[in-house]
Amino acid sequence: MALIVQKYGGTSVATLERIRNVAARALATQKQGNDVVVIVSAMSGETNRLLGLAREISETPSAREVDALAATGEQVSAALTALTIQALGGKSRSLLGHQVRITTDSAFTKARIKGIEGSKICRTLEQGEIAVVAGFQGVDEAGNITTLGRGGSDTTAVAIAAAIGADACEIYTDVEGVYTTDPNVCPSARKIPRISYEEMLELASLGAKVLQIRSVEIAMKYGVKVHVRSSFSDAPGTWVVGEEKSLEDITVAGIAYDKGDVRVQIRSIPVRPGVVASIFGALARENIAVDMIIQGTPTPTDDGLRTSITFTMPQSELAAAKPIIERTAAEVDAKGVTYDEDVVKVSIVGLGMRSHAGIAAKMFDLLAKEGINIQAISTSEIKVSCLIASKYLELAVRALHDGFELDKAGRKGE
Amino acid sequence: MALIVQKYGGTSVATLERIRNVAARALATQKQGNDVVVIVSAMSGETNRLLGLAREISETPSAREVDALAATGEQVSAALTALTIQALGGKSRSLLGHQVRITTDSAFTKARIKGIEGSKICRTLEQGEIAVVAGFQGVDEAGNITTLGRGGSDTTAVAIAAAIGADACEIYTDVEGVYTTDPNVCPSARKIPRISYEEMLELASLGAKVLQIRSVEIAMKYGVKVHVRSSFSDAPGTWVVGEEKSLEDITVAGIAYDKGDVRVQIRSIPVRPGVVASIFGALARENIAVDMIIQGTPTPTDDGLRTSITFTMPQSELAAAKPIIERTAAEVDAKGVTYDEDVVKVSIVGLGMRSHAGIAAKMFDLLAKEGINIQAISTSEIKVSCLIASKYLELAVRALHDGFELDKAGRKGE
Repeated sequence: MALIVQKYGGTSVATLERIRNVAARALATQKQGNDVVVIVSAMSGETNRLLGLAREISETPSAREVDALAATGEQVSAALTALTIQALGGKSRSLLGHQVRITTDSAFTKARIKGIEGSKICRTLEQGEIAVVAGFQGVDEAGNITTLGRGGSDTTAVAIAAAIGADACEIYTDVEGVYTTDPNVCPSARKIPRISYEEMLELASLGAKVLQIRSVEIAMKYGVKVHVRSSFSDAPGTWVVGEEKSLEDITVAGIAYDKGDVRVQIRSIPVRPGVVASIFGALARENIAVDMIIQGTPTPTDDGLRTSITFTMPQSELAAAKPIIERTAAEVDAKGVTYDEDVVKVSIVGLGMRSHAGIAAKMFDLLAKEGINIQAISTSEIKVSCLIASKYLELAVRALHDGFELDKAGRKGE
Repeated sequence: MALIVQKYGGTSVATLERIRNVAARALATQKQGNDVVVIVSAMSGETNRLLGLAREISETPSAREVDALAATGEQVSAALTALTIQALGGKSRSLLGHQVRITTDSAFTKARIKGIEGSKICRTLEQGEIAVVAGFQGVDEAGNITTLGRGGSDTTAVAIAAAIGADACEIYTDVEGVYTTDPNVCPSARKIPRISYEEMLELASLGAKVLQIRSVEIAMKYGVKVHVRSSFSDAPGTWVVGEEKSLEDITVAGIAYDKGDVRVQIRSIPVRPGVVASIFGALARENIAVDMIIQGTPTPTDDGLRTSITFTMPQSELAAAKPIIERTAAEVDAKGVTYDEDVVKVSIVGLGMRSHAGIAAKMFDLLAKEGINIQAISTSEIKVSCLIASKYLELAVRALHDGFELDKAGRKGE
């Protein structure tokens, strides 16, 4: 007998018919002798509908009220799921964030969990009931309703699994698991049977949308075994687990890409101390994260020694960043700024890189062979990212997938 | 400066446009120097949509989950209303049942309020904010979400007005106030400027839908001054207040009717002790309220002395009551049961009846003059009800309205 947390996303509870599948699966898991906690998202589309109403009222709606509004989406699906489990002959009870008691800070719309009381869930389980917990929501210490931000139900699930010491946290989604790369881009992409928290974190931060990054951080911190799988099949998905010896045998576990960046180039900046700091300092004060910074070679000009600065940043923050960039560029007497959104960041991720030399060189070589120019590079211990023109996306991903032999079975469990 | 509670029903918050009217009215009331608490119902249609989902899942959905589901309707409108007040430049904060803390018993779907903590509302008002409270909902002592039953937002409003000592509780609705009778049936119906709690209670219990009966009981118990008025105009509506000398001058304040009853006749019952008790005892055990009981004259038959019993009961409970009635009728050896839904109960209500003799006789006379047969009669201190064939409804109401001169100004304030 095990204690299983199951999280179902918006597409899995989109209709009463699908909720019936969720209820049946939870009941089947219970009948196998397990205690079951179900976490549900809002029915797909509902959160957007509610946020749309708020935006119709105001372009800058109060975050506190937006959270009170948005939290109803999960409340509805939790009650409907509990009712459906009962209709199928099971015992069940819905629990909201303030009922479980999921305490968060007061950062409305992007709150972070501070603590979870497991006792109410455990009492529910002791009575033979399936606890259905509304994802995405909590309460701050003053009793205000908060939400955890997009994908927050993953975080709710993993945090509850940690709080009650669950044996596994199953994340049900509309894909079969975590893939070596996006199957839409590379048809030979394969499901990864096991992946480490570290690799998953890198993939999530690079735009692979299967798990919210915060939930992976919590899973890693508390050692929660996460199983990403499809709510439309019984096939095993991807286990996200602690580092294991066997995981290091594979140098590259997956290939991610992110189309959401813009490349910014500030041209012809005087080379003198403090100029670079003043540009990035201004952006940092607005909480705009920049990445992949390249400083050009200083070149003599009529105005003295000058250089250029290139960096990438999220397209979504460009509207906020542009005035700051333009103002700072003018202040340091730069000759112009260009923005290029036709770029994509392609990354290889794998624990094995730490112990295998030459992985980055091989990546550059594979791209060069396809005639793809690398505009910028960034690396971490288990990741190498290259910025390329977006028209080369598919070509690059397929070349890397083949070159690192990700189409072939590698890891244990396959 | 006064402390005003304003309650807006589902039609008043049916769209974002109407919510804007609500917000504007609340702000205008605040700008006149008042503290304002707004209670909102769910957007019209939303509660039915949610209950419809529950019934799609199960014909007998768990009441606990139904309440968790239905309570989201008021949560949404409270948040939208607070956002709209803010968008119009005001300060506001939504408060849910568990945040205010409105404690109820655990009778899900028809919970009764046990207590209200006024402190959170008062703190909100002290900060210059308009408190927008979700109507219809509370929490029981275990923290389960409960609802107060249909029309429960009226009860929330009056109970909060009592808890915080409000100077007035304004109930905004889609009619101008309480009328001498239904204007759809009798075009000369007039708005009543002032009415006593007792009269309002009788009218509400007789099917005049303008105020939930429970809310009138609470208003009477705590002396809350209730003002029923239209959310689409600024005209004064009807004040529901304690007994005043002037209110007694008018013998008949209003005429109500109720089409929701069925007349049940159990024919040819042996006259012997305990027979009547066994019939009504069986119904009482199922909580089915019967009204207007008439026992016929005992008549000798071949089977001994026999009689008939006629009574009325709500049509909505007939499905549950029928098996009990049929079984009990068989047990006492009755010769048959007939049901007649083509009946309507017409009632006159007025405080003045207590001190004026002959009101009932005048009612019977007015009906007789129109050739309307009275099938049953029931009375209270301030009410006389007659059961008649439903085809006479309009005729009866107009005859009584004219006969008691309700089309003429009577009460002070007109």
